[in-house]
Amino acid sequence: MENKKHKIAIVGATGFTGSELARLLCQHENVTIKHITSERHQGKLFSDLHAQFLGIIDQELESADVIKESELDVIFLALPHGVSMDFVKKWKHKKSKIIDLSGDFRLSTPEVYKNWYQKDHVFIEGFEHAVYGQPELFADQIKKSSLVANPGCYPTASILSLAPLISAGLIQEGSVIIDAKSGLTGAGIKANDTTHFSNVNENFKAYGIGIHRHTVEIEEQFSILGKSKVQVQFTPHLLPIDRGILATSYANTTRKLDQESLISMYTDFYKEKPFVRIRNSAPSIKDVRGSHYCDIFPFWDQRTDRVIAISAIDNLLKGAASQAVHNMNLMLGLDEKTGLEQTPLRP
Amino acid sequence: MENKKHKIAIVGATGFTGSELARLLCQHENVTIKHITSERHQGKLFSDLHAQFLGIIDQELESADVIKESELDVIFLALPHGVSMDFVKKWKHKKSKIIDLSGDFRLSTPEVYKNWYQKDHVFIEGFEHAVYGQPELFADQIKKSSLVANPGCYPTASILSLAPLISAGLIQEGSVIIDAKSGLTGAGIKANDTTHFSNVNENFKAYGIGIHRHTVEIEEQFSILGKSKVQVQFTPHLLPIDRGILATSYANTTRKLDQESLISMYTDFYKEKPFVRIRNSAPSIKDVRGSHYCDIFPFWDQRTDRVIAISAIDNLLKGAASQAVHNMNLMLGLDEKTGLEQTPLRP
Amino acid sequence: MENKKHKIAIVGATGFTGSELARLLCQHENVTIKHITSERHQGKLFSDLHAQFLGIIDQELESADVIKESELDVIFLALPHGVSMDFVKKWKHKKSKIIDLSGDFRLSTPEVYKNWYQKDHVFIEGFEHAVYGQPELFADQIKKSSLVANPGCYPTASILSLAPLISAGLIQEGSVIIDAKSGLTGAGIKANDTTHFSNVNENFKAYGIGIHRHTVEIEEQFSILGKSKVQVQFTPHLLPIDRGILATSYANTTRKLDQESLISMYTDFYKEKPFVRIRNSAPSIKDVRGSHYCDIFPFWDQRTDRVIAISAIDNLLKGAASQAVHNMNLMLGLDEKTGLEQTPLRP
Amino acid sequence: MENKKHKIAIVGATGFTGSELARLLCQHENVTIKHITSERHQGKLFSDLHAQFLGIIDQELESADVIKESELDVIFLALPHGVSMDFVKKWKHKKSKIIDLSGDFRLSTPEVYKNWYQKDHVFIEGFEHAVYGQPELFADQIKKSSLVANPGCYPTASILSLAPLISAGLIQEGSVIIDAKSGLTGAGIKANDTTHFSNVNENFKAYGIGIHRHTVEIEEQFSILGKSKVQVQFTPHLLPIDRGILATSYANTTRKLDQESLISMYTDFYKEKPFVRIRNSAPSIKDVRGSHYCDIFPFWDQRTDRVIAISAIDNLLKGAASQAVHNMNLMLGLDEKTGLEQTPLRP
Repeated sequence: MENKKHKIAIVGATGFTGSELARLLCQHENVTIKHITSERHQGKLFSDLHAQFLGIIDQELESADVIKESELDVIFLALPHGVSMDFVKKWKHKKSKIIDLSGDFRLSTPEVYKNWYQKDHVFIEGFEHAVYGQPELFADQIKKSSLVANPGCYPTASILSLAPLISAGLIQEGSVIIDAKSGLTGAGIKANDTTHFSNVNENFKAYGIGIHRHTVEIEEQFSILGKSKVQVQFTPHLLPIDRGILATSYANTTRKLDQESLISMYTDFYKEKPFVRIRNSAPSIKDVRGSHYCDIFPFWDQRTDRVIAISAIDNLLKGAASQAVHNMNLMLGLDEKTGLEQTPLRP
Repeated sequence: MENKKHKIAIVGATGFTGSELARLLCQHENVTIKHITSERHQGKLFSDLHAQFLGIIDQELESADVIKESELDVIFLALPHGVSMDFVKKWKHKKSKIIDLSGDFRLSTPEVYKNWYQKDHVFIEGFEHAVYGQPELFADQIKKSSLVANPGCYPTASILSLAPLISAGLIQEGSVIIDAKSGLTGAGIKANDTTHFSNVNENFKAYGIGIHRHTVEIEEQFSILGKSKVQVQFTPHLLPIDRGILATSYANTTRKLDQESLISMYTDFYKEKPFVRIRNSAPSIKDVRGSHYCDIFPFWDQRTDRVIAISAIDNLLKGAASQAVHNMNLMLGLDEKTGLEQTPLRP
Repeated sequence: MENKKHKIAIVGATGFTGSELARLLCQHENVTIKHITSERHQGKLFSDLHAQFLGIIDQELESADVIKESELDVIFLALPHGVSMDFVKKWKHKKSKIIDLSGDFRLSTPEVYKNWYQKDHVFIEGFEHAVYGQPELFADQIKKSSLVANPGCYPTASILSLAPLISAGLIQEGSVIIDAKSGLTGAGIKANDTTHFSNVNENFKAYGIGIHRHTVEIEEQFSILGKSKVQVQFTPHLLPIDRGILATSYANTTRKLDQESLISMYTDFYKEKPFVRIRNSAPSIKDVRGSHYCDIFPFWDQRTDRVIAISAIDNLLKGAASQAVHNMNLMLGLDEKTGLEQTPLRP
Repeated sequence: MENKKHKIAIVGATGFTGSELARLLCQHENVTIKHITSERHQGKLFSDLHAQFLGIIDQELESADVIKESELDVIFLALPHGVSMDFVKKWKHKKSKIIDLSGDFRLSTPEVYKNWYQKDHVFIEGFEHAVYGQPELFADQIKKSSLVANPGCYPTASILSLAPLISAGLIQEGSVIIDAKSGLTGAGIKANDTTHFSNVNENFKAYGIGIHRHTVEIEEQFSILGKSKVQVQFTPHLLPIDRGILATSYANTTRKLDQESLISMYTDFYKEKPFVRIRNSAPSIKDVRGSHYCDIFPFWDQRTDRVIAISAIDNLLKGAASQAVHNMNLMLGLDEKTGLEQTPLRP
């Protein structure tokens, strides 16, 4: 039955996202990995780059040039921002569906893109077709799409944490503050001062204060969900761990709530979403690590009349690779859970 | 000149605070450690409990009973909340100055204490004399006091982060949100589920959401500084590191500011405070680890008209032991910097 | 087809081994988990104890008393040393196969057991039937056995690192030194001084020097493989990580070798063992974390005429739970790889 | 009295060693830091590079060219191997004493240097004068020297661990195996794959197996101490921590010993060495972190007739910067303990 499998390619094998995509897809029952590409490392084996794959994926890395003539059902772009759009443009006449894990097609317009990414967009036409790939919120559009912009890691945790309240129109304008914390893999595989062990280990800091690009991504999606402009204060921090994001979201509501009704509202909102788990106490990052789950605890502080919603995801999975696979499942008409039911790895 | 040194005792040798006090005080030029007490371990050597002190402090641990008859200039209480007050009561007729590192005398009234600590206070009279020992804010009162309540670790980082704005009456009521993150030593030396390595390492979580005792401590001090009631949303989180607190404080202001004037305001406010360093970019925990410094970066977000102030301290030092030594220096009329000028240990 | 699945029970749900067994077995295609037991927590849900399983295994914990009357194909004992043997004795007339993850049936005789475990053995008869469950070395005996002693974590890494040379009779008597390092989960889930975060984090130490119980387990297996008595110097160390063991094994050989022939010898020895990977450079713990692989790099030091073999495993998997599943696969006549092909989780 | 202080310079401000030297020397009572140099960063402040020094050392970084004309008592070279020798050569006519923290003058001859460092030495004359700066072993020579080669970090821990036995001629030739483990700062401040957080964190590996340069440094010093050629098997490993080395040294002895006499032998050997602490149980890295101590536990294994000696140091201090200050104290005729009595920082 091997030949009935969907053919996919992973463009960009070097980074964490590429290797996590490979890990998930090599065990996905409906898929065969036809190409893994890397311009810098073509000719080497995938397991030369990522030693954990020895004997598992010893496939040769190819140039992305092979994609042009290859019949592929899905192409995953695991490339840096500003690079992805070139490939999407180049392959616009191919019939393959594209899932882009960069930020190049997540925003509403080329102008907003330029504003926050300090770069002119080269494929403006893509904005018409691209669908924001948050499977819990936009499954219908994703199913019909051939270009999905896979959401950012912080936006995934942030948006899911408040979506039920935003959608219900219950949030006071101007009151949303998201204090988010991410493991180091969010900074990428490149060696630099930020990723040097001694700057991360036993340390903690905020960064990108007031200017992080994920701010606008969250604001745009909240504005769509809430049907009116939502401003967000978003502050990312760097945790001395490999994986995981925990977002602590604060918001004032337009009317008083209570704990019980808050939990109900969240449970209802996500009742057919198999990978969102509403908890009765605060989740920790290890409760979801290595899995596709997003765990959320919404808390009503009756002393201050404020909601505090805590959400946890694995930034490389629900915040990147497994979310991309989830989108692929939807785009190919497969059961959305296929290949995604790993239990979190703890401890 | 040995006999001109002030005689001090450390009551409670087992915990991190006790051992850090000993480390600082054994090298303090104006002090001699006369007693270190532990009920559970009396008879053992201090270095039996804390192996790093081998050959440095091999002093025998005594019962706290020895304190009664001993002539002491200063007694440090490094005891759990709810235990300290018994000793303060017992020794109320002694001439020794007392510095209590627990929460027993930090709050305004026995009622507030009972409310947040779920315990009746046994020494109500203490509330009349106790001074809140934040050296940067209340040095004059501390100098004259014989009972100092050493501030909590989170409150130290939190209060210093916004004190200039609160004191200037620039904060909008109801807008203060403090999202704080602490290393594990804040949870104490006792072995339990919270302190088990596998629950902390590679993990991160919020706790005490909406109910943490430090909330009221911060609110009370802010209300004193601001001369009107201030409500605070305070959320602590547990970092997978040994030492350090980073507080990210959000507040709306009563008028628009700008980055330059904000920095000036902070620099002016702390200009004669040798251990507060105002930075032009976000501090990280390792910038202050192992030291008495509190580093602060106040940021004006012109997009949202909000202040975000980031502060970093070592929870065991500026948040506990070195702050207690600072208070001692003030109480004894010494140069406030004595024994406190360690450079942060990084990496 | 659900009713064709083999019925299994996990006795002892509290610890890391129990939860890893549950994680692997709940996704094993030929198995259904009939009981998970815990005397202390019976009545609670498994996911109450191990929050990561919320919505995945919400099964109720039972008393081990239910095992007696339950028809089961395989019982896994995830219990402490000295407790397992009571249950094996109690259930000796049941037809279920038993896989014991404790040390109770790993050694050759009750006398050796008493010597190293300081405890009288209560089920001496068990020694006649128990098979040492190292699947790479004793698959034939395991297939026929109804009582398998699952190997210790250190012994697994140690034995596999030198087995090819020992089996070939190439090791000089008295020359074997194994310097092993383990992640903290090897010390168990119990909260005590050893497992307190601040004693582990940023720290490293040796322990059990000269007296660790795994010494005799390694010596006995080496003696069997080498057909003559082998003495081993074994020193365990505690790594500030959750998972993983790395063993650095030193041995003088009875004749000179070279790098190429050494690699050949190892590759040949393990050529039909799908979970042992011979590498051409030193493996790191993350190359195998979260997987059933044992990676080995044997190095011939021509300057000193000595072999240094480095092996890496995940102590909770290849060193415990996945090895138990491997044994189960062999005992039930299943493909030995079933349910065990997870790619290592890195980063 | 400021002008009576010895004038020193630190050449090479960028790295961990440079910043630790600055930290120790800025609080050393007999010293004033006249220059800190960096070619790449000249003109910046020292605290721009190392943020923890803000307000403590805000001194401007200079080019090393200023050294030529500056009157200096001691010059510390905190430079990479292969670079130091150029400066030692250039400044050979200066009266300043030089302490070189690189490996350039640690070995016996230019030939041995070339063999292990793969580089021709440019200042062969230096070999005649250079003294190996292990203060516990060669204090007399160091006091008279004007060029001290500060020992390597691994060699310091390794040599001290066995020096008493080697000096007594009690070690069997060919039996010494040193299995050493170091924190990441040993790999330096440069960002590369080795120092990337995700390759270090939750990981552990051996490296430089059979070929690490410190092997020959240890062998040469052991051969001097033992008055006959000693071969050593040395295997370094990388720990996921910032600081610290733990060496586990194995050796067979020429006659049987026992635990008591072993401890006596070590205690006697180091009895006037204030920074070596002989312990009765295994030290951990945190027992010495942030200090100049070397803690040693020698263990006699009566089962195997072998000595296992465990030693722990802070690689950046006893293994580099504080050892250099110790050497300076000896060279300047100061009390050897001056500025070096910091208590280890734990937790």
